[in-house]
Amino acid sequence: MDVIVGGGVVGLSVAWRLAREGRPVTVVDPAPASGASHAAAGMLAPVSEVTYTEAPLLRLGVAALRRWPAFAAALAEDAALPPAGPEGVSGLDLRAEGTLDVAFGADDMAALDELAAFMEKLDLPVERLTGRECRRLEPMLAPSVRGGLLAPGDAWVNPRRVTAALLAALERRGVPIVRARVSELVRTDGAVTGVRLAEPPAEPPAEPPAGPAEGRGSAPLAATDGRAGDEVLAAERVVLAAGAWSGELAEVPVRPVKGQIMRLRSPQPLLTRCVRGTVHGSPVYLVPRGDGELVVGATQEELGYDTRVTAGGLYELLRDARELVPGVTELEVADVVAGLRPGTPDNLPVIGPGRTPGLTYATGHHRGGVLMAPLTAAILMGEESELAALCSPGRFREIS
Amino acid sequence: MDVIVGGGVVGLSVAWRLAREGRPVTVVDPAPASGASHAAAGMLAPVSEVTYTEAPLLRLGVAALRRWPAFAAALAEDAALPPAGPEGVSGLDLRAEGTLDVAFGADDMAALDELAAFMEKLDLPVERLTGRECRRLEPMLAPSVRGGLLAPGDAWVNPRRVTAALLAALERRGVPIVRARVSELVRTDGAVTGVRLAEPPAEPPAEPPAGPAEGRGSAPLAATDGRAGDEVLAAERVVLAAGAWSGELAEVPVRPVKGQIMRLRSPQPLLTRCVRGTVHGSPVYLVPRGDGELVVGATQEELGYDTRVTAGGLYELLRDARELVPGVTELEVADVVAGLRPGTPDNLPVIGPGRTPGLTYATGHHRGGVLMAPLTAAILMGEESELAALCSPGRFREIS
Repeated sequence: MDVIVGGGVVGLSVAWRLAREGRPVTVVDPAPASGASHAAAGMLAPVSEVTYTEAPLLRLGVAALRRWPAFAAALAEDAALPPAGPEGVSGLDLRAEGTLDVAFGADDMAALDELAAFMEKLDLPVERLTGRECRRLEPMLAPSVRGGLLAPGDAWVNPRRVTAALLAALERRGVPIVRARVSELVRTDGAVTGVRLAEPPAEPPAEPPAGPAEGRGSAPLAATDGRAGDEVLAAERVVLAAGAWSGELAEVPVRPVKGQIMRLRSPQPLLTRCVRGTVHGSPVYLVPRGDGELVVGATQEELGYDTRVTAGGLYELLRDARELVPGVTELEVADVVAGLRPGTPDNLPVIGPGRTPGLTYATGHHRGGVLMAPLTAAILMGEESELAALCSPGRFREIS
Repeated sequence: MDVIVGGGVVGLSVAWRLAREGRPVTVVDPAPASGASHAAAGMLAPVSEVTYTEAPLLRLGVAALRRWPAFAAALAEDAALPPAGPEGVSGLDLRAEGTLDVAFGADDMAALDELAAFMEKLDLPVERLTGRECRRLEPMLAPSVRGGLLAPGDAWVNPRRVTAALLAALERRGVPIVRARVSELVRTDGAVTGVRLAEPPAEPPAEPPAGPAEGRGSAPLAATDGRAGDEVLAAERVVLAAGAWSGELAEVPVRPVKGQIMRLRSPQPLLTRCVRGTVHGSPVYLVPRGDGELVVGATQEELGYDTRVTAGGLYELLRDARELVPGVTELEVADVVAGLRPGTPDNLPVIGPGRTPGLTYATGHHRGGVLMAPLTAAILMGEESELAALCSPGRFREIS
């Protein structure tokens, strides 16, 4: 049996893929579908102001985006998602109207020119727009927007719906979800042979994710090895998909990168596309959902395992969102959360077996967990050997 | 029996006072200790940038502040409050270190000069301070603060502790709290003779106030008058203390004035005094609690019965708080709520009997409900005839 440690979007996608291949699999997570997956905005945008100079990451992102339509269609079917919710939003709220990057000053405009040239060189679809053209596409944009770049191929999805659908699909396939924390990987003769489960948390998580998670039974645990208060779940292979916490269980150079993100509620959608910009030197994006929700993200903070929502983080998001789209002022604040992204030294994920038999990695996705979840599952199935090399755990000497 | 409609700080204070005088009394509120009392910061500061030109309101405020120490001591005893909580904060968190009004620009400085002159004329204690003196008192103040005004007599209290203590004191005295909404006042031959209770809410309020509210029984209801689904509670006198909703039950010119307010959590207190200032033309205040909580308030919005927390309201609070005390940036956001203050045309409360026999008003306290609650109870006991005249319902022709 494969044991997946971590029930975020990556771990659940891997588990679902394995289940569809007929492999026995179990997911272990004290609070599935929480953490960074619960916080994420869900942009499926391989090219951004942050990543365009990083060619390997861009290659991964482009390949990852291509996998999304088929992944979403199969997931909607396998999870038996209803065709449309009461608010007229169907399935995973996957949309592909593109991303609009906007510029305010001369520096921003120059940066967009460079980005456009780079994308054209790679044959990626891109359109350079004047300020007026930007506002014609998105009338709520600030009058001070001077120009923009439309990436018409970019898409986005609601990550909370994705993880809820993955949990539903896993349930329909009879995959057990063990709601417990893994305290350590169990090693026998130098190989990983299972996971040790800590006591399950006494209380449910403070913010249980919405979705069809009710009534899902826990798996029967395999064995105890005589240590008080914990149990061992044996595994032929352990897939470590514990996001920012992966480094607590194995030697993998993953660090938490805190992101604070806000969800606003709008009676009518203010935007039809994802809108991004750089305000006061910090990148901000606005992601519109079909139900009128508008996601504003996200801070990037190196503060360790800190998930406090702070006055400063909230201020930054609100200030920058107002600068892009002044009309957000009138919207209700529905939700503010902080998540921890799993960052790596080279910003690339860590996917595949390491040096220890029985241990496989699926972590380090940083800001790209939702985008890269389907691709990650494919890499683990051996479908993308060239891309797999970019993500190989072996590139880090310290990985065990 | 007196029936108090409204279990906010005013209604509960009136009920407690009546109970201490040995009068039979019942409080009716679907969610006691919520609403504006739950949102309020609890400043006991009669002089502020808003009210100092309004002499009658100032007289009321000064008299109201004088009543607070005895009120707080009697309440702590009657509620059997423990001497100190686990975090070292005792009782109601009543503190009297004064208010510091600060100025940034020449206009603000001139306004503080005027305010100081006005206070000196009234023999109110006041000290004019330089920017450096302000920062000596409060080292976390922004370097751009140019001067300030210390009102050393001002105090503040934690309103959530006050309402929790009032509920505890009422319980100890056996005063029933009926958790139901009043749908209308019952009138017989031109007099108010009771209240009609709507069905109690099916669900508890979204944010139940903390405190010793558990286990309090509802009062037995007096009678039904044959109308389906509601019951009548007979009363010799009805005291209307329903805050911003008072106008729904009687002809009284009270309107909702929305206030959004934020609570931050600090490991150590950032301030020792209440700090106020005018930033970008809007007044902001910071109220420090003994447990490290820092309250930032408050917007003033005329939007009807709208209690949404909005992006714009939150932005304003955060921006202004940062301007006064840049260190707030690091603090955790613990709580953001919106409450509705009961505003009146002349900014004075409405206290006392109206023209209708059996009906007494205790409403319209706008921003001063916490400050004026003890005084309001005293006025209703006939102790302050001169001040009572200022608050007389008869000054409004439309009051019934």
